[in-house]
Amino acid sequence: MGIGEFEFIEKIRQRAARGPLIKLGIGDDCSAITVPAGQHLLTSTDLLLENIHFRLDWTDLASLGQKSVAVNVSDIAAMGARPLCVYLGLGLPPGFTDEQLDQFMDGFFAALEQEQLFLTGGDTCRAQESLTIAITIQGLCPEGQQVTRSTAEVHDDLWVSGTLGDSALALARLQAGKPLSEFLAARHFRPRARAELGWQLGSHKLATAMLDLSDGLAGDLTHLLTASAVGACIDLDQLPLSEEFQKALIVDPRLLDLAICGGENYELLFSAHKHNRTRIEDLAQEFGIPLRRIGTVIADEELVFMGAEGQPYQPQLRSFDHFATPGKPLPSS
Amino acid sequence: MGIGEFEFIEKIRQRAARGPLIKLGIGDDCSAITVPAGQHLLTSTDLLLENIHFRLDWTDLASLGQKSVAVNVSDIAAMGARPLCVYLGLGLPPGFTDEQLDQFMDGFFAALEQEQLFLTGGDTCRAQESLTIAITIQGLCPEGQQVTRSTAEVHDDLWVSGTLGDSALALARLQAGKPLSEFLAARHFRPRARAELGWQLGSHKLATAMLDLSDGLAGDLTHLLTASAVGACIDLDQLPLSEEFQKALIVDPRLLDLAICGGENYELLFSAHKHNRTRIEDLAQEFGIPLRRIGTVIADEELVFMGAEGQPYQPQLRSFDHFATPGKPLPSS
Repeated sequence: MGIGEFEFIEKIRQRAARGPLIKLGIGDDCSAITVPAGQHLLTSTDLLLENIHFRLDWTDLASLGQKSVAVNVSDIAAMGARPLCVYLGLGLPPGFTDEQLDQFMDGFFAALEQEQLFLTGGDTCRAQESLTIAITIQGLCPEGQQVTRSTAEVHDDLWVSGTLGDSALALARLQAGKPLSEFLAARHFRPRARAELGWQLGSHKLATAMLDLSDGLAGDLTHLLTASAVGACIDLDQLPLSEEFQKALIVDPRLLDLAICGGENYELLFSAHKHNRTRIEDLAQEFGIPLRRIGTVIADEELVFMGAEGQPYQPQLRSFDHFATPGKPLPSS
Repeated sequence: MGIGEFEFIEKIRQRAARGPLIKLGIGDDCSAITVPAGQHLLTSTDLLLENIHFRLDWTDLASLGQKSVAVNVSDIAAMGARPLCVYLGLGLPPGFTDEQLDQFMDGFFAALEQEQLFLTGGDTCRAQESLTIAITIQGLCPEGQQVTRSTAEVHDDLWVSGTLGDSALALARLQAGKPLSEFLAARHFRPRARAELGWQLGSHKLATAMLDLSDGLAGDLTHLLTASAVGACIDLDQLPLSEEFQKALIVDPRLLDLAICGGENYELLFSAHKHNRTRIEDLAQEFGIPLRRIGTVIADEELVFMGAEGQPYQPQLRSFDHFATPGKPLPSS
């Protein structure tokens, strides 16, 4: 790399927009922000490591920059809140060029602009071998509005946004050396967080519990159920699947498990009172966001997947555990 | 490792203390905190990478856990503020054992307790080859109290806490394969941030500009001078040096450059009006914190080091740039 550390910091400092709540941005020991009265500050942090979370021979760097923002925005959306600003930690391996850094930052800033977010700090250094990305995001939420995982109630509906399994199907194809369609590539490499949906569900108090699907439906739903001390019955016939996923499923029915257990959907999963069904459907229509009711919260603390004829189904893939599967972001199909 | 990702999260969740301002801690998509009216939220983030920032054959993991907290507390102290909570991102390489993880977390939690900080979130995953630590810290600061780098004034005194160069001397000895004294090992592996000093200087409005010394006196002072559009004259005779450093300096006078340019001091460097000298000295005495007046802010935008006989001195080491020196946290002596 030709650029020096402080030259790089100065370059991104000039590029980072400043909002009215940002009192101090990049360039000091800390950022300083104002949190308006009656609001909570929300924070989430994510590590993205080369060859663990992404491969540079699969993704272009602009997409990676964009995805780094999206996966964090998704965490704020899952609380029913709005994102405000991000902090970017970057460890750059030997041989990483100025052009590569520019490509990453272009995708990163494009996503910030799209989500109306500010870059307010970070840390840059060399890495020994692989690209290291650490992102922290902060958001604002009116007190009492935040939707946690622990407040789902028995008899609630369970809803999910978008379609499931596309990202996992893309990964399975990449791992098998097969080409990706534009659609699957976009779902895997350039996910968009459901920022507006999260905010609408939060501000209208329509979700009783919510999280974002990063580890897969089965795994993440289990987190929600455990936190809420309830169970769920999921109607497999109702899982929202893209056209491309459905076509693949006809060829290989075992791919269903990718929709159930595959990670990186970055869709929102939430519980809601039955009497709010119409309001939620209206919201989906108003904002053009696909929403599907996939099951019900039950009192028994178990997770049951039901097939079309009412038979229970046991997926063969286990849900994702970062410590258990070194180097593989997802089980391949 | 025997422990699973979610078992680990549950384990540290139980261990993480909760304060009155922490509305939601570990275990959801985000943390939620209350920022009292009239206060700003401060945030800083740091990456610590194996074989870039630390070597596991040199440091024990408890010290590393402790240092990970200290270097972040130092950033909050440098704003004249108080730290509140931290977020821990951990990428664990293959072969990293449960015992190693416990040791790291023991040191980490010990430092949190010492600084009365809360662990409010994080992210854990496998790393491909080397231990990856990403820490974000948040602090609170009454509005108008934060001390930035950009407000030093001509004729101000320049002060520094503690002693300079010990950590760099320790590193030079490690790199030369020499043993470390207890004192040098503590200064390098287990630095304590100047948390109380930062807060006192901020709350009594005694510092006109401040930062913490992580990259070395020459480098960090340059950041402060550039941000403030001023210069400085530093009296080398006044640099605070530990007894051990002074002894080493007698043997090899070139080591002076380690006090001037060597990084990882984690001391505070600040400017202050001349008429506050007595108040600052009283503060130093009250809290038992060594403080030394090392120079003066000047109008010419240059940094001059003056020897005992008034002759200018040019250090031979350049200040630290993370992009320029792959794999070496500091130039060796």
